[in-house]
Amino acid sequence: MRRVGIIMGSDSDLPVINKTVDVLKELGIPYEVHVYSAHRTPTEAREWSLAAREKGIGVIIAAAGMAAHLAGALAANTTLPVIGIPCKSGALDGMDALLSTVMMPSGIPVATVAIDGGKNAALLAAEILAVSDSELAKKLDAKRAAEAEAVLKKDANIAERL
Amino acid sequence: MRRVGIIMGSDSDLPVINKTVDVLKELGIPYEVHVYSAHRTPTEAREWSLAAREKGIGVIIAAAGMAAHLAGALAANTTLPVIGIPCKSGALDGMDALLSTVMMPSGIPVATVAIDGGKNAALLAAEILAVSDSELAKKLDAKRAAEAEAVLKKDANIAERL
Amino acid sequence: MRRVGIIMGSDSDLPVINKTVDVLKELGIPYEVHVYSAHRTPTEAREWSLAAREKGIGVIIAAAGMAAHLAGALAANTTLPVIGIPCKSGALDGMDALLSTVMMPSGIPVATVAIDGGKNAALLAAEILAVSDSELAKKLDAKRAAEAEAVLKKDANIAERL
Amino acid sequence: MRRVGIIMGSDSDLPVINKTVDVLKELGIPYEVHVYSAHRTPTEAREWSLAAREKGIGVIIAAAGMAAHLAGALAANTTLPVIGIPCKSGALDGMDALLSTVMMPSGIPVATVAIDGGKNAALLAAEILAVSDSELAKKLDAKRAAEAEAVLKKDANIAERL
Amino acid sequence: MRRVGIIMGSDSDLPVINKTVDVLKELGIPYEVHVYSAHRTPTEAREWSLAAREKGIGVIIAAAGMAAHLAGALAANTTLPVIGIPCKSGALDGMDALLSTVMMPSGIPVATVAIDGGKNAALLAAEILAVSDSELAKKLDAKRAAEAEAVLKKDANIAERL
Amino acid sequence: MRRVGIIMGSDSDLPVINKTVDVLKELGIPYEVHVYSAHRTPTEAREWSLAAREKGIGVIIAAAGMAAHLAGALAANTTLPVIGIPCKSGALDGMDALLSTVMMPSGIPVATVAIDGGKNAALLAAEILAVSDSELAKKLDAKRAAEAEAVLKKDANIAERL
Amino acid sequence: MRRVGIIMGSDSDLPVINKTVDVLKELGIPYEVHVYSAHRTPTEAREWSLAAREKGIGVIIAAAGMAAHLAGALAANTTLPVIGIPCKSGALDGMDALLSTVMMPSGIPVATVAIDGGKNAALLAAEILAVSDSELAKKLDAKRAAEAEAVLKKDANIAERL
Amino acid sequence: MRRVGIIMGSDSDLPVINKTVDVLKELGIPYEVHVYSAHRTPTEAREWSLAAREKGIGVIIAAAGMAAHLAGALAANTTLPVIGIPCKSGALDGMDALLSTVMMPSGIPVATVAIDGGKNAALLAAEILAVSDSELAKKLDAKRAAEAEAVLKKDANIAERL
Repeated sequence: MRRVGIIMGSDSDLPVINKTVDVLKELGIPYEVHVYSAHRTPTEAREWSLAAREKGIGVIIAAAGMAAHLAGALAANTTLPVIGIPCKSGALDGMDALLSTVMMPSGIPVATVAIDGGKNAALLAAEILAVSDSELAKKLDAKRAAEAEAVLKKDANIAERL
Repeated sequence: MRRVGIIMGSDSDLPVINKTVDVLKELGIPYEVHVYSAHRTPTEAREWSLAAREKGIGVIIAAAGMAAHLAGALAANTTLPVIGIPCKSGALDGMDALLSTVMMPSGIPVATVAIDGGKNAALLAAEILAVSDSELAKKLDAKRAAEAEAVLKKDANIAERL
Repeated sequence: MRRVGIIMGSDSDLPVINKTVDVLKELGIPYEVHVYSAHRTPTEAREWSLAAREKGIGVIIAAAGMAAHLAGALAANTTLPVIGIPCKSGALDGMDALLSTVMMPSGIPVATVAIDGGKNAALLAAEILAVSDSELAKKLDAKRAAEAEAVLKKDANIAERL
Repeated sequence: MRRVGIIMGSDSDLPVINKTVDVLKELGIPYEVHVYSAHRTPTEAREWSLAAREKGIGVIIAAAGMAAHLAGALAANTTLPVIGIPCKSGALDGMDALLSTVMMPSGIPVATVAIDGGKNAALLAAEILAVSDSELAKKLDAKRAAEAEAVLKKDANIAERL
Repeated sequence: MRRVGIIMGSDSDLPVINKTVDVLKELGIPYEVHVYSAHRTPTEAREWSLAAREKGIGVIIAAAGMAAHLAGALAANTTLPVIGIPCKSGALDGMDALLSTVMMPSGIPVATVAIDGGKNAALLAAEILAVSDSELAKKLDAKRAAEAEAVLKKDANIAERL
Repeated sequence: MRRVGIIMGSDSDLPVINKTVDVLKELGIPYEVHVYSAHRTPTEAREWSLAAREKGIGVIIAAAGMAAHLAGALAANTTLPVIGIPCKSGALDGMDALLSTVMMPSGIPVATVAIDGGKNAALLAAEILAVSDSELAKKLDAKRAAEAEAVLKKDANIAERL
Repeated sequence: MRRVGIIMGSDSDLPVINKTVDVLKELGIPYEVHVYSAHRTPTEAREWSLAAREKGIGVIIAAAGMAAHLAGALAANTTLPVIGIPCKSGALDGMDALLSTVMMPSGIPVATVAIDGGKNAALLAAEILAVSDSELAKKLDAKRAAEAEAVLKKDANIAERL
Repeated sequence: MRRVGIIMGSDSDLPVINKTVDVLKELGIPYEVHVYSAHRTPTEAREWSLAAREKGIGVIIAAAGMAAHLAGALAANTTLPVIGIPCKSGALDGMDALLSTVMMPSGIPVATVAIDGGKNAALLAAEILAVSDSELAKKLDAKRAAEAEAVLKKDANIAERL
């Protein structure tokens, strides 16, 4: 199976990425993680993304805050799908990161998830890999069913908590 | 090749979807298009999404405006990747549609592109299908190179336009 | 008397719903409460709303955060009045939930109250039921008068607190 | 049947209210319309709302723009359900009217619909009256079905328009 | 000297009003304070504002949060100058109160100060009374000079704090 | 009677100021008008405001757009009441001007009216002068009554326009 | 004198850059202009910025819209001062471009001017070059004085235009 | 070498300015610091900025919160480059300060950095001085390289922290 390449712009984004990694582990999806900043280490970010498809990466997940250029900067160098996680940091609570990640100009898409959406980024990466992997699709369906079950269990007990 | 399923919430979103369709045609990616509203035809939207994977859909693209629930409503019924296009309509210029599409709760991801980002939605769908289709990946790389060429041609002539 | 059906998208919305329940109890209005997510348990949410009128529900209250589709998703399946409570959760302090709840497209209304407005949702439900129930209307008027009295008591004592 | 009382803060809100009136006429719901400003004619607005329930009003619809206090001002004088329509006018495209209408303090609810949501305000008023009027509920269900039909007709013809 | 009438919508606004009162005391300006809600005690708010000029009020200060209608509601009943203080409360940090206070329609002005601007509301009231009171104007000038002095003292010592 | 001093930051603000001047003329209030920019002609803006009280100015009205510093810059040099009109210009539709005008730090108040609120600025200036001028107060009351009359005339004819 | 390097992300930004070029010409400052997109031609943008200081560039001006990464992407490759012009384009009127340009993380500054601030970008570039060029500083002072003169001429004639 | 002149509007901005001073010290750039408010000490702010170039200042850094006029007020009196730091303070988390600083009208530029961007303000000042100082340019390049190194060290160790 192709690996998921996870890049975070700063190690302060680690709490968000930990949720991403947890889901990938649970689903048995291989991954690699790097700390590369689009602004502080543009060369490394660029080289990694230029080579990504060839070394077996299937989907890229990029997490960054504030003027979050990381996902877009990686997407500029590859036609692999790039998932962007806008991170909440600084004064504007992630709204800056959201707009900087999602409002990409025509030609270079970034698949943006919610602010601090580390778990959904992993699920989306899994869904992308599962397009051609019916085993993984089944795992995803099972995980969905389990989450529904958890909601219904809460529903069953809600009366006691009111 | 798996098809792209395109759902628009209203036929007023057609100008956005036309850009999506143009790219898919150019890349030779099969697709089907529907007008299903998450609110006005919830049953049809639901049934289509429940059956989507089985009838050969690989990626879903959903376009809607205002309180844009369509992408999320489809994503709730399938583990296929769902791309959401927030459409500009109504008083708030698409900011409502953007937040309604991208701020999905944990468990159900929507791959959100820019407001009115019909072209990027198609490119993202193609990138997703290209993860396991190296022919398509090459086409995407070629298209990228052509777009870069177009920018550089503008660069070459910019002095005359100042 | 018809019951109020209260649906919360997650049990993290319980503090908001507790205020709703308190008011309904005080006014002697019957209710039932469920935890159904529009995204994680779409089937249960749908089936409950499709059957709601028939099993004696008169008004629906739906509370959800972030891309809050719950109220709209329920409203899509019934012509009972649906009251939406946008909940403050995640990075954007409920602005995303507010826009996702209130900016409904033509045809499917949601009666939206303030962010975290659990108490006002209950009062609005009561006002709706009181349109054809003059006893309940009197209770509401008495409650209003009591709240005004409480303000005036604070007014009487304000000089001492300056 | 109880009447719907429609108050607009200025006759510049007439295009929005015309959509409201169209729906009420179609459903055979009686109504009366007034132009009363919460700020320019506070006495008339107050007196009308104080007497509303007694003279047969069942639901109030209030439309206003900018710092839209009208719905809240009427709601302060009655426990009838008050539906607020924030109108788009002035520099801020209705965001000011939306927040002024929906963010009501505890105790005095306003059932807020989308900016310029004249049609949904009428439908919501009808849903409220239909809680105790099964004939009207049937009309609403039929209208819903007709709107769904219209969407599906567009779906059937969409291929030709691409 | 005419009195300043201070109305707060809720006693939760007391910390803001305490700053107002401190400045008025310091300048020797008479005042009265009330807790009147535009929504919960509309009658008292109305009657007080209708009678305000006659009983010697010269300027009104109104503090309220969320959909802050208080300043506008008082201004609707008097041509005395009304100063509005939008208070930070609820989910939106006072942005709702700011827009609800400042975006008044033509005909009924509210002199709006910053969110939680209790001190500036008092200074503005004093400036208004000082238009025809040269003693008070001198006090205001002296207070300004003292505040400038305080800044310059901080400037003199800043090097030690770096 | 003390004059109203009107300063606009640019002659592009003239349409807003024309509404101000119309009201002052109607009420017989003397005024003078200048074009002084806080940024382009800081010396003239400063000197005018330093001398304003002495040469008979009673209230200052300042209109400016974008990063609208004008009202605050004038207020820094005088303890006369300064009314700020945030003007809609540039990309952000006046939201920048609103925040730049209203969010003044403690010590230097600006009485802010709505974006492009030229008419209300004049009314507020008149209300301020009327605190010590009962003739002017009567004129203001009469103008209010006339505006209420105009609304009620619209109310009387509204049925024909539906 | 060192040249100003002007990069625009798309030739749709030309109207903004024309204002930049006009000022530079007027001040006799040499410049070069390119169309390089951070996303569509990342290689050219990178190589140009890496070589910029050596080939005589003194200041860089970068103009881009939407998720405007251009200024930041150039700044990542050089320690020359980079001025960012957020351009108004797309649904969000330049607010996305503003946040994407100004909210840069620590370490890589971008000197951001107003949305569509093509003229101010040129003036800022001139001010930067004038730090070590007293002739240019004199030209800037003269230009300032001329602009003040123009405002004062408008002030002199304003009475006639009211 | 020309000095950097740092002005803060209030000593509450000291934590931001400390980061500025740290960078200037590290780079060996001379500086002076003042507490001058555009509103509370307009005379001192004005006189300092009018004299700044002559007494050896090369770049100005101005930090202020809320309706942050300081950078613009200084820029109005000099053609030295002025860097504005919008500070987070008050209810709106610095968004007011950002717009008040960056949205300057044509003619008077302010080089705006991120909210609370004290470190980047210093780096930008250094970049400006380095345009004509190749020694300083080398120091900046070395500092960049060191920061990149720090990121790569984090990258090397990230696996252990997951």
